[in-house]
Amino acid sequence: MNQFDNVISRFNTDSVRWDKYNKDIIPLWVADMDYETPQCIIDAITKRLDHKVFGYTHAPYQLKEEITQYIKDQFDWTIESEWIVFTPSLVSSLYSIAQQLTQADDHVLTLQPVYHHILQAASFSHRDYSAVPLDNYYHRLILSAEGLKHYQKSNTRLLLFCNPHNPGGSVYTKAELSEIAAFCVNNNIVICSDEIHCNMIHDGIQHIPIASLSEEIADQSVTLMSLNKVFNIPGLGLAWMICKNKEIRKKIQAQIGTLIPDPQIISYISTQAALRHGEPWRQELIQYLESNKLMLKNDIKQMQPLQMYTMEASYLAWIDCSQLEIEDPAQLFLEHGLALQPGSMFQQDNHVRINIATPKSGLREALDRMHAAIDSLQD
Amino acid sequence: MNQFDNVISRFNTDSVRWDKYNKDIIPLWVADMDYETPQCIIDAITKRLDHKVFGYTHAPYQLKEEITQYIKDQFDWTIESEWIVFTPSLVSSLYSIAQQLTQADDHVLTLQPVYHHILQAASFSHRDYSAVPLDNYYHRLILSAEGLKHYQKSNTRLLLFCNPHNPGGSVYTKAELSEIAAFCVNNNIVICSDEIHCNMIHDGIQHIPIASLSEEIADQSVTLMSLNKVFNIPGLGLAWMICKNKEIRKKIQAQIGTLIPDPQIISYISTQAALRHGEPWRQELIQYLESNKLMLKNDIKQMQPLQMYTMEASYLAWIDCSQLEIEDPAQLFLEHGLALQPGSMFQQDNHVRINIATPKSGLREALDRMHAAIDSLQD
Repeated sequence: MNQFDNVISRFNTDSVRWDKYNKDIIPLWVADMDYETPQCIIDAITKRLDHKVFGYTHAPYQLKEEITQYIKDQFDWTIESEWIVFTPSLVSSLYSIAQQLTQADDHVLTLQPVYHHILQAASFSHRDYSAVPLDNYYHRLILSAEGLKHYQKSNTRLLLFCNPHNPGGSVYTKAELSEIAAFCVNNNIVICSDEIHCNMIHDGIQHIPIASLSEEIADQSVTLMSLNKVFNIPGLGLAWMICKNKEIRKKIQAQIGTLIPDPQIISYISTQAALRHGEPWRQELIQYLESNKLMLKNDIKQMQPLQMYTMEASYLAWIDCSQLEIEDPAQLFLEHGLALQPGSMFQQDNHVRINIATPKSGLREALDRMHAAIDSLQD
Repeated sequence: MNQFDNVISRFNTDSVRWDKYNKDIIPLWVADMDYETPQCIIDAITKRLDHKVFGYTHAPYQLKEEITQYIKDQFDWTIESEWIVFTPSLVSSLYSIAQQLTQADDHVLTLQPVYHHILQAASFSHRDYSAVPLDNYYHRLILSAEGLKHYQKSNTRLLLFCNPHNPGGSVYTKAELSEIAAFCVNNNIVICSDEIHCNMIHDGIQHIPIASLSEEIADQSVTLMSLNKVFNIPGLGLAWMICKNKEIRKKIQAQIGTLIPDPQIISYISTQAALRHGEPWRQELIQYLESNKLMLKNDIKQMQPLQMYTMEASYLAWIDCSQLEIEDPAQLFLEHGLALQPGSMFQQDNHVRINIATPKSGLREALDRMHAAIDSLQD
């Protein structure tokens, strides 16, 4: 049996996802996975527990070197260790960056539809901001330089970007990224690129960190990464920022250890173990997610008139329900026993996001409920 | 053998305290302990590891009730569960509170000498602030209403307070607290009271949360507590804020889950285990710390002209070296193989803070080095 087919009950584990609804509902909303984390992570934590002293702890000395090597291996991007800044939470750093890299009278660009923290990072910053609508090419969502140009202001100083995109899962091509990078370089706009889904790319596509395109764009970029999503350890939390520019790096570092706490012991340990020993597990995970995606795609085709966006990464599929012509599709599915992330969270009420990182048996049941929900409309 | 006599090497564990100097230096500076955390915490984490899924996790449902009971048992203070707000870091919340509970043109009061994060929380807030010098009664440091009155402005809206005090270790009496509370109530000043050392009180003294004094003061207070210090788990991190006032509570909660991350799984688990099973260990710890304090006191008496402040709590002793008439006493001790926290960190260059939460054998050696340092001046 495939290890990811193993059904693990998450009831009574204080899971945000599983505790919201009663046991009759399949919850495929929040973005974590129903899979066990790899044994190498458990083993590393267990070993650290043996020491029994848990005082103030800095990052393991080798960790930045290991990340540097990982970035080279995965993305063929050569960075220096000192470009790396640890943070206990990629999301926290989004909020911090929106404040720290702008002045009170600056303007910020962000995207829509996009997951709520990116939009909130812009709005909570108390800066003027615009959410650029993504271009929709046959249900593949992409930010274009045209879009940026249209929403740019003379005081635009920051772009909050996301690649692979959430929701939707598009992975930007080199040509697409180059256009965005050129626009930002020409207009002196810093890019904050949230790339947390970069290590779950499907179908042999290559993820390209936008900062890796040129020296110029590296010099005005902050790249956010983490292993939390791919190794299913968001509850243990570590992320890092990659920033070549020393001055910008100083600003994004300033709130860590003060307003944002330093990362914790178990976080460092977990990420280090995943870097060292997690690659075979990650490969198997991606295969499993790809097969789940196929299952989903085949089913959605039969659920007229739903349409699924091109999903090139991760485990979050974005479903266009607009042609159902109902106000709240998430509510329809919920009434049929399936909790999806409502599109309203991403500024598109007539869409839903489904999390397919669950054993196939559960996904099968979830899809059957979706069919039943759609069929109910045709009664 | 007493369990706290057990010498545990912290080299090669990424300890902030032990990694700063070479192995010839005894490092008694950063405020964590060299003791193993109680077994109940290790057991609880180990049990949670068995589940192997570490997704997004909320606080255990019972945890607020358990803290409410703990507050009643320890401090005879009756609070309601809904007054509790979890935070991954007491320090982060200090910085957040200084911003969230004031407007741009408000004035903040804080203390001196005081540990750096309290002072920085005031200064980083970009508010006008004043650090009120503590009264020094025969080397017992206390904030007085007189002091507050002298530094108060018409726009003072927040007092960043600390009890037990760090550094120095004074535990405020009911009379002393009442005076401060009355001043704040009369002048409409919110108190943020950092009480992280409240569960390490010596010699049968009773800690009194300032918010417990009356309904009025509870209504304009935020009390910060944590088990991280007392159970030696600062590297696993959980703290909580107690706030009766709903409107204030909303403000102190606003940055958690956004700019400040939510607490992590292992943090909740550790604190819950300590609440449930940690009390006998805590009692033994306090006895051991009291005996270390006696040893320190007796030695300091023989180190003319040093003077030690009244230490009624915790494991951080504050030593007045002013009569040595040297510029940097911490440097003197360092040259004799002992790293103490320099007084400059607390705005008093001619003082040092020593951390006595180490096995007696190490403390003995450290004190011998202090003697040698003092003797060297008389050569």
